[in-house]
Amino acid sequence: MWPNRTLLDLLGIDLPIIQAPMAGANGSSMAIAASEAGGLGSLPCAMLDVDKVRAEIGVIRQQTSKPINANFFCHTPAKPDAAAENIWRDEFQPYYEEMGLDASLVAPSPARAPFDDKMCTLVEELVPEVVSFHFGLPDKKLLNRVKAKGCIVIASATSAAEAMWLEDHGCDAIIAQGYEAGGHRGMFLTTDITTQAGTFALIPQVVDAVSLPVIAAGGIADGRGIAAAFALGAAGAQIGTGYLLTPESMISDLHRDALRSATDDQTALTNVFSGKPARGLMNRVMREVGPMSDKAPGFPSAGGALAPLKAKAEGAGLVDFSSLWSGQAAGLAVEMGAGELTQKLAKEAADILAKLGGQAS
Amino acid sequence: MWPNRTLLDLLGIDLPIIQAPMAGANGSSMAIAASEAGGLGSLPCAMLDVDKVRAEIGVIRQQTSKPINANFFCHTPAKPDAAAENIWRDEFQPYYEEMGLDASLVAPSPARAPFDDKMCTLVEELVPEVVSFHFGLPDKKLLNRVKAKGCIVIASATSAAEAMWLEDHGCDAIIAQGYEAGGHRGMFLTTDITTQAGTFALIPQVVDAVSLPVIAAGGIADGRGIAAAFALGAAGAQIGTGYLLTPESMISDLHRDALRSATDDQTALTNVFSGKPARGLMNRVMREVGPMSDKAPGFPSAGGALAPLKAKAEGAGLVDFSSLWSGQAAGLAVEMGAGELTQKLAKEAADILAKLGGQAS
Repeated sequence: MWPNRTLLDLLGIDLPIIQAPMAGANGSSMAIAASEAGGLGSLPCAMLDVDKVRAEIGVIRQQTSKPINANFFCHTPAKPDAAAENIWRDEFQPYYEEMGLDASLVAPSPARAPFDDKMCTLVEELVPEVVSFHFGLPDKKLLNRVKAKGCIVIASATSAAEAMWLEDHGCDAIIAQGYEAGGHRGMFLTTDITTQAGTFALIPQVVDAVSLPVIAAGGIADGRGIAAAFALGAAGAQIGTGYLLTPESMISDLHRDALRSATDDQTALTNVFSGKPARGLMNRVMREVGPMSDKAPGFPSAGGALAPLKAKAEGAGLVDFSSLWSGQAAGLAVEMGAGELTQKLAKEAADILAKLGGQAS
Repeated sequence: MWPNRTLLDLLGIDLPIIQAPMAGANGSSMAIAASEAGGLGSLPCAMLDVDKVRAEIGVIRQQTSKPINANFFCHTPAKPDAAAENIWRDEFQPYYEEMGLDASLVAPSPARAPFDDKMCTLVEELVPEVVSFHFGLPDKKLLNRVKAKGCIVIASATSAAEAMWLEDHGCDAIIAQGYEAGGHRGMFLTTDITTQAGTFALIPQVVDAVSLPVIAAGGIADGRGIAAAFALGAAGAQIGTGYLLTPESMISDLHRDALRSATDDQTALTNVFSGKPARGLMNRVMREVGPMSDKAPGFPSAGGALAPLKAKAEGAGLVDFSSLWSGQAAGLAVEMGAGELTQKLAKEAADILAKLGGQAS
């Protein structure tokens, strides 16, 4: 039924859809729904500690016997840099004053820890069928331990060069993450966002560069996008923003409302929330401080300075200082359960593929 | 044979491929080859005067009876601003010194005139079957004269909002120009490049926003891209960079060589060559002065300051100061005649569409 079964066979799933792991925006319930529907559900673990990951995977295993994906970041955390932090905090001083906040209240940034020995031990114990990485791969010893357990390893590439690097370093499939994608860009061989390729240009060039199955990501939120991904040579699609309006999504009501009215020209890449470029709906802090700022300290510490502003503004119903992660296709997202959505997306894609070929033959 | 015939029927062509008008990079010979092959050949007229357009269309009419497209810019030229020009020239002073050039030699920028009464009179006389516009549309009187002659009018949109504007103002089809596209972005309701959408996100949102046929552009250089465009709901594709390695392409040998080795992560949007954002292969002046510079004077005057640097550097075999226009899919471009290429692209697309559906049914 699908034009390319390499990913389905590799992952042992029925539908060529990976529900994207979205740190802070989804937990076990969305992963369960997506996997039970026949896709691959993903648990984002980057903002969870070992105990929380154990608990979440425990819940998932109780509710589905289908394959699941555990996702980890593998960045090198920036070294603490008090001078840079102070410069960054000064950038926000006018906002603290405007909002009547005490700058000394600034808390550390939300934790985003890289995959480490403790997390690897947990993976060895729980053995998620798929382990995915963002920002490259962990060091060889950790990666070998994951692979020795039989986990399928996938990771994000934002260029053909990164895809080839991932193939050379042991990945089993490549997520080609186009410029359209919401949240953090997985780029790891470059920091230059000006040369990042859109999904349409990226997919075929990654497909030509590697022999692994390629998963298209970025700007895909309906069946048309999944069908187009196959046309470009991909073996499946990873969809994130498309799931943000489901009841399983953990985003705030304010974030949800902003997404409901989003159009194609309302997101930008910004580093003001974390120190690394990530795509979200444009808002006041992105416009006034960013969207990209040379003053932002290293990932993931930049977010701390915004936390009190975000809390105060959200209390007043404003998203001026909130990270409203979104890809460029939020306008295509629909409101329904994550399981139902997964099946709807697949059915739409299958219908389009049949129609394209039926009329072409 | 094609899943959507609305564009083919509107334009009276056999293959769903528009050879993109590329000012400075193609003339009559490429347009003739593309139209004769069954696509729509395009003559870029923005850098030509009335006599030259008359001569080029005369050549085309002698060699093909198929429909053709004449393309015009319809920007509002920036008012001369000596102060801004001086600031901009100062930016290049170190380069003039390095290259042993006299800054007083700086010539005016290459002319890029907007569509005007004289050009409109010529269009009324020669009646190209299709007239396409970049940077919005000309004023209503000029547009009405073009439409009164029966010319099909198409124009570029870089957002759903621009597409709706073009539909409201009388366009017959919309070119949805994604972020991946080479050359000048057609944006006209915004100047903010950070929110520009990739082709994958843009096409379906434009398709949903208007009732006109949508032509996908940006990052498409092979049959996979054309098939994917149909999957996303487009009725055809406009391809530019894919034609730059044909013998009909008028680009320099240096530009051609740079394209031959291009990968997906080597282009950026820059305003240093003209004052408006356009995508080209990254080079020294883009890296050091741009890629986007707040100091660049208004379109199209920015290019003048670079002209002597470009000439001197190219004489030494260097492209440090040359605009190397390219989309993000240059890596997919092949070297063959423009007519043969048009047919090859269409055949590839048709084969992929049949295969997608054949296996999906």
